[in-house]
Amino acid sequence: MQDFLDCHERIRPYIHNTPVLTSRSINAKIGAEVFFKCENFQRAGAYKIRGATNAILKLTDAQRKNGVVTHSSGNFAQALSLAARSIGVPAHIVMPLSAPEVKKTGVLEYGGKIYGCQPTIKARQETADKITKETGATFLHPSNNKDVIMGQGTAALELLDEQRDLSVIFSPVGGGGLIAGSALAAHHFGQNCAVIGGEPFAVDDAYRSLKSGKIEGNVTTNTIADGLKTTLGDNNFPIIKEYVKKIVRVTEGEIVSAMRLVWERMKIIIEPSSAVAVAALLRDALENPNDYKNKKIGLIVSGGNVDLENLSF
Amino acid sequence: MQDFLDCHERIRPYIHNTPVLTSRSINAKIGAEVFFKCENFQRAGAYKIRGATNAILKLTDAQRKNGVVTHSSGNFAQALSLAARSIGVPAHIVMPLSAPEVKKTGVLEYGGKIYGCQPTIKARQETADKITKETGATFLHPSNNKDVIMGQGTAALELLDEQRDLSVIFSPVGGGGLIAGSALAAHHFGQNCAVIGGEPFAVDDAYRSLKSGKIEGNVTTNTIADGLKTTLGDNNFPIIKEYVKKIVRVTEGEIVSAMRLVWERMKIIIEPSSAVAVAALLRDALENPNDYKNKKIGLIVSGGNVDLENLSF
Repeated sequence: MQDFLDCHERIRPYIHNTPVLTSRSINAKIGAEVFFKCENFQRAGAYKIRGATNAILKLTDAQRKNGVVTHSSGNFAQALSLAARSIGVPAHIVMPLSAPEVKKTGVLEYGGKIYGCQPTIKARQETADKITKETGATFLHPSNNKDVIMGQGTAALELLDEQRDLSVIFSPVGGGGLIAGSALAAHHFGQNCAVIGGEPFAVDDAYRSLKSGKIEGNVTTNTIADGLKTTLGDNNFPIIKEYVKKIVRVTEGEIVSAMRLVWERMKIIIEPSSAVAVAALLRDALENPNDYKNKKIGLIVSGGNVDLENLSF
Repeated sequence: MQDFLDCHERIRPYIHNTPVLTSRSINAKIGAEVFFKCENFQRAGAYKIRGATNAILKLTDAQRKNGVVTHSSGNFAQALSLAARSIGVPAHIVMPLSAPEVKKTGVLEYGGKIYGCQPTIKARQETADKITKETGATFLHPSNNKDVIMGQGTAALELLDEQRDLSVIFSPVGGGGLIAGSALAAHHFGQNCAVIGGEPFAVDDAYRSLKSGKIEGNVTTNTIADGLKTTLGDNNFPIIKEYVKKIVRVTEGEIVSAMRLVWERMKIIIEPSSAVAVAALLRDALENPNDYKNKKIGLIVSGGNVDLENLSF
């Protein structure tokens, strides 16, 4: 618990304490009060800067000199580049060639060096390993690193600081860093606050992992939520198993509708991965209305990095 | 001046005091601090609820009973419907058949009754006159009514309340209500704060009106900024003539780029009419950099009502 507060203190100069927004029409739709923690307004457009900053700040001076390396489909890439530049550390970023243009541009603008690779987890890791060997840079996994997980959890920490009596927090599930960090934060700082994950049916590895008790992979990656194609790791899965109440799966249609609802009603840009959490809340509130009636619900809007050239509506 | 404060007090229970946002990257681009007054987060998605509410609240009880009528391409229509419902007054809304679907839906959801008409100013006024005769409702012009103008000015009043030392406020110019109200507010509450209007080249009636000294019409209406196709009126033009420093005209390409810049960088949805003010600032800061260097600039983000089916990028 003190670890968490120390982590928050450490990264605070480098991040925004993002606003918490509400929407009358969405509250009316769900019959509850929903508090959106707007990490789309975070630096580099997503919560990822929190974990990236924490992980870099925990390196030794000698380690910092050699820089950091990661692989990421987008948001962590931008976040690590910006965090590294803020702290004065070189950043080597392995990105699949298929990553959205807007995310590649972001990495370059923040001073990261991009290394292209094929869009498979194996190719990403091999390229990152090669860079580690050549440069001596420290590899920082986007979601399966304890310092990253704790950093990501500070979004839920701030949300609970503002709304102590949330009965549940929704978070999207991709690599598992955000939901694991959120679950730890809810455990330490919530008042019996549950954590529920939202995941596309198309990449429901976390749902299946919780069912089977071991980390499962994905067979397809056919989802609009490009940030959620990755799978859980051995550092975050035990936390998820212990502290996450359940995973709610949603269709691609539900993701697009939820994204549209938030854009139209709240006038904020959220990315498809964030819309997954909104869609999960909408679905679960429909299936289990008594769990939500007149409750206070938190929701981590994970990011707002959208390729405007390729919108789904 | 006291009139203004009374107006603000009167409408305050019915409106949001919207947030003022900033963007590091946009500040860096302009070399100044820009304060965005986010009326896209206003009730019904635009500043128009301010003037609509003020105008209804100034009616007598007898007048209120017969309701209100207006013609509007969209935002004022929604605003008047919502304001009327909040206060308990019937709202008759004349809308051109070509108005965006999302705006028609908004009017219906807020309880307004829609009357379709051809998309000309003449057809709008004739239809509204007919309803006035039939129902006894009071006609409220969207921009050329003194109570509406003062209500719209409360956005600039709130902005100046938060940032006293703005050297200029940018506002889009359509029918002239917002810029006239903003100019009055800047005159009364600013410290030598100028007001500059942004207008599309395609509908530059206000620019030409200021040049000629009399109200000019538009020949074309071929702009993405659908809220700015209307022309000035005899109540707001004298205020604009006296208190507005200048009108900066922008191309359609500049409007789309500015809209995209704000969506991508600030992660907020602004409508094309609002982007016109951003584009005007960008253009004028490029042409007259010394007017902006290290200054504090205010900008009224007038609304966020966008038809997501018909985006320009």
